[in-house]
Amino acid sequence: MLKKSPLAPKSIRKINQINGIELYVYSAGLYNKRRLDLSLFLFKNKTTVAEVFTKSSLRSCTLDWNEKNLKNKEIQALVINSGNANTFTGQAGVNALNRISSFVSNKFKVSFKKVFFASTGVIGEKFPEQKIVNALKKNQLKSKNWLQAAQSIMTTDTFPKAISVKTKIENKTITITGIAKGSGMIEPNMATMLGFIFIDCLIPQNILQKLLKDLVDKSFNQITVDGDESTNDTVIMTSTNSVLLKNTISSIKDKRISKIKNCLLPVFKYLSEQIVRDGEGATKLININIESAKNSSQAKRIAKAIANSPLVKTAFYGNDPNWGRIIMAVGKTYEKIDPKKLKVYIGKQIVVTNGEEYKKLNLQKLKKYMASKKIDLKLDLGQGNFSYESQTCDFSHKYVDINAAYRT
Amino acid sequence: MLKKSPLAPKSIRKINQINGIELYVYSAGLYNKRRLDLSLFLFKNKTTVAEVFTKSSLRSCTLDWNEKNLKNKEIQALVINSGNANTFTGQAGVNALNRISSFVSNKFKVSFKKVFFASTGVIGEKFPEQKIVNALKKNQLKSKNWLQAAQSIMTTDTFPKAISVKTKIENKTITITGIAKGSGMIEPNMATMLGFIFIDCLIPQNILQKLLKDLVDKSFNQITVDGDESTNDTVIMTSTNSVLLKNTISSIKDKRISKIKNCLLPVFKYLSEQIVRDGEGATKLININIESAKNSSQAKRIAKAIANSPLVKTAFYGNDPNWGRIIMAVGKTYEKIDPKKLKVYIGKQIVVTNGEEYKKLNLQKLKKYMASKKIDLKLDLGQGNFSYESQTCDFSHKYVDINAAYRT
Repeated sequence: MLKKSPLAPKSIRKINQINGIELYVYSAGLYNKRRLDLSLFLFKNKTTVAEVFTKSSLRSCTLDWNEKNLKNKEIQALVINSGNANTFTGQAGVNALNRISSFVSNKFKVSFKKVFFASTGVIGEKFPEQKIVNALKKNQLKSKNWLQAAQSIMTTDTFPKAISVKTKIENKTITITGIAKGSGMIEPNMATMLGFIFIDCLIPQNILQKLLKDLVDKSFNQITVDGDESTNDTVIMTSTNSVLLKNTISSIKDKRISKIKNCLLPVFKYLSEQIVRDGEGATKLININIESAKNSSQAKRIAKAIANSPLVKTAFYGNDPNWGRIIMAVGKTYEKIDPKKLKVYIGKQIVVTNGEEYKKLNLQKLKKYMASKKIDLKLDLGQGNFSYESQTCDFSHKYVDINAAYRT
Repeated sequence: MLKKSPLAPKSIRKINQINGIELYVYSAGLYNKRRLDLSLFLFKNKTTVAEVFTKSSLRSCTLDWNEKNLKNKEIQALVINSGNANTFTGQAGVNALNRISSFVSNKFKVSFKKVFFASTGVIGEKFPEQKIVNALKKNQLKSKNWLQAAQSIMTTDTFPKAISVKTKIENKTITITGIAKGSGMIEPNMATMLGFIFIDCLIPQNILQKLLKDLVDKSFNQITVDGDESTNDTVIMTSTNSVLLKNTISSIKDKRISKIKNCLLPVFKYLSEQIVRDGEGATKLININIESAKNSSQAKRIAKAIANSPLVKTAFYGNDPNWGRIIMAVGKTYEKIDPKKLKVYIGKQIVVTNGEEYKKLNLQKLKKYMASKKIDLKLDLGQGNFSYESQTCDFSHKYVDINAAYRT
């Protein structure tokens, strides 16, 4: 059992159910020890669904499955398991999805083509289809505790990640609930390991999909734990017609969409930050801001190079303001930088300016800041008006512990 | 003091001096404890020089200096120090090179424009110019022990890296000696941290430069320790006219060049492999071969993605044949792969075939193999005729130890 991350939130606020969605959580025996490892979401009302997938060229068959079903624009069931990624499991893995879908479709009276899957765990091991079907056969009680769903999708996560927010539209309360899991093989591109966001008012699927893409770019796609992109990364967002709006939303420019988007962004940001806070072995959360870049791709490349550098990450773990390694990471992007214009800030202190270390640098103060659990790092490239933000964690002995012994 | 890498060679064969080159090694006090930290090579005969540099966009001023002097095609002095990288040291760093060059030029009667530098150590700290000049002022005895030069350039290296080979051309003995250092911030592109190869027969500079580029691509550019490309990577090769050949070599197609190249390749391969064997915290040497790729860039991207994946490297450290992580690393390159055609071999055993784990996999045998100090990993992509080879090491607790406390 992994010790809870020192960066875990002190407490998790109340997680709200979404009306129109029934949740069942199971202990299907997918791990050696008994724990929650399987969730089933049943969407009883009309519900639109949007999904973004990993860009990995060798992805889980669950993502192929979902991509096909996404054409139907609606979801009626979502089956999520931990303990096995159902990736590189050959035809047997696909057969398992067929069989579980048939079972869910028959037992819960949902359309076979509206069953979605998400799996996380070891790649390449035989998918435990029978254990999952056996669990689903039980006459389980509906769970009112949605935090249990967040618990059931954990792998090396040390705490569940969930958030609920509310807003008012046309004087009606709209509820949004999101859950996610990390915590290694994390440098999502288009999506994260697993993230699920549920809204209880109906948004047309094409708008929902656009919203999702944009929100993921501003949240999950900005984080990295170890630069390893998963075969299973996926974020699914659903919108259920439990709260009835006067007129259907028909355009992304609808003012109600802006309001919902403003509500969703902190949900996405919260969940993606929690994944970094629970990054394998993390002891520090590092916020990286690249400013005054020539263009956004330059800003992004530099932010990601710093965020993924093992040398930067181990220095932060060691409380060492070894800014030379930050310079190294910038240089290895091959982006043209004028050293004289580059400014590096750690916290509020300027560390590098005019092509060298800031002459009045207060090293004692800086070292003290480096020992905090949350570090802000800012680079001003002095070139243009573009910026990019990335979150990462440090690299500790525990990352090696966890990953050298993951399957033992 | 770091313990010697378990992958260090049992012994280092005799290192030959190169006639026409004088070596001086010093303890200039560039570290807290007394050790060799400065070398001066004086080229007394006509000597051509070739150099390849890091592609980093924020590189050491020593590389700018050398690139300028490389236009003169000849070298008369080479000053190498450890303990400080002379990178991001502002105008002061450049002034130091001017001053040291002047001093060396006056004291040793060499041309100011034929003095080359190489520095390795912490980035951004004030360059210890005065300590270096003070050391060079001493009337030091010439060193006949060239291994001392390899010792003086070590940073977190745990053993010196050096090799000598001989060949016969026109019945005369040609000697080649090379030294190098690693061992973190290693994913050279065009060059490695520091490598120096000396030949005692004259090769025209344009041919020497072409040879160097080609050899570096087949050796130093294939290795990675942590995916972090240094600001100071450089390989310098010199050729001295101590052994006089009947006719000057005037073409790269000269048969004598093929003979010399055949001799040089194992020298480059040996030195680059030693850098991986002394990778920070390394306990295993991993040879990665990508075969039957569509083109060489595909083969290289996949090899490097595997070689740099923290999850693959920690699994190897933990003796875990977790091939799912190899699949993940292939996928994150976004290269199109047909899972059914992909074959993965660990050692001589086939592990993945036909889109899933090999059904007759002998896991016990595989686990035993995973515990060896040298692991061969082969991927057959089943696409074309291109291949790429890469060497890397595993990722252990000691890497974190070394790099969290590097400056303490």
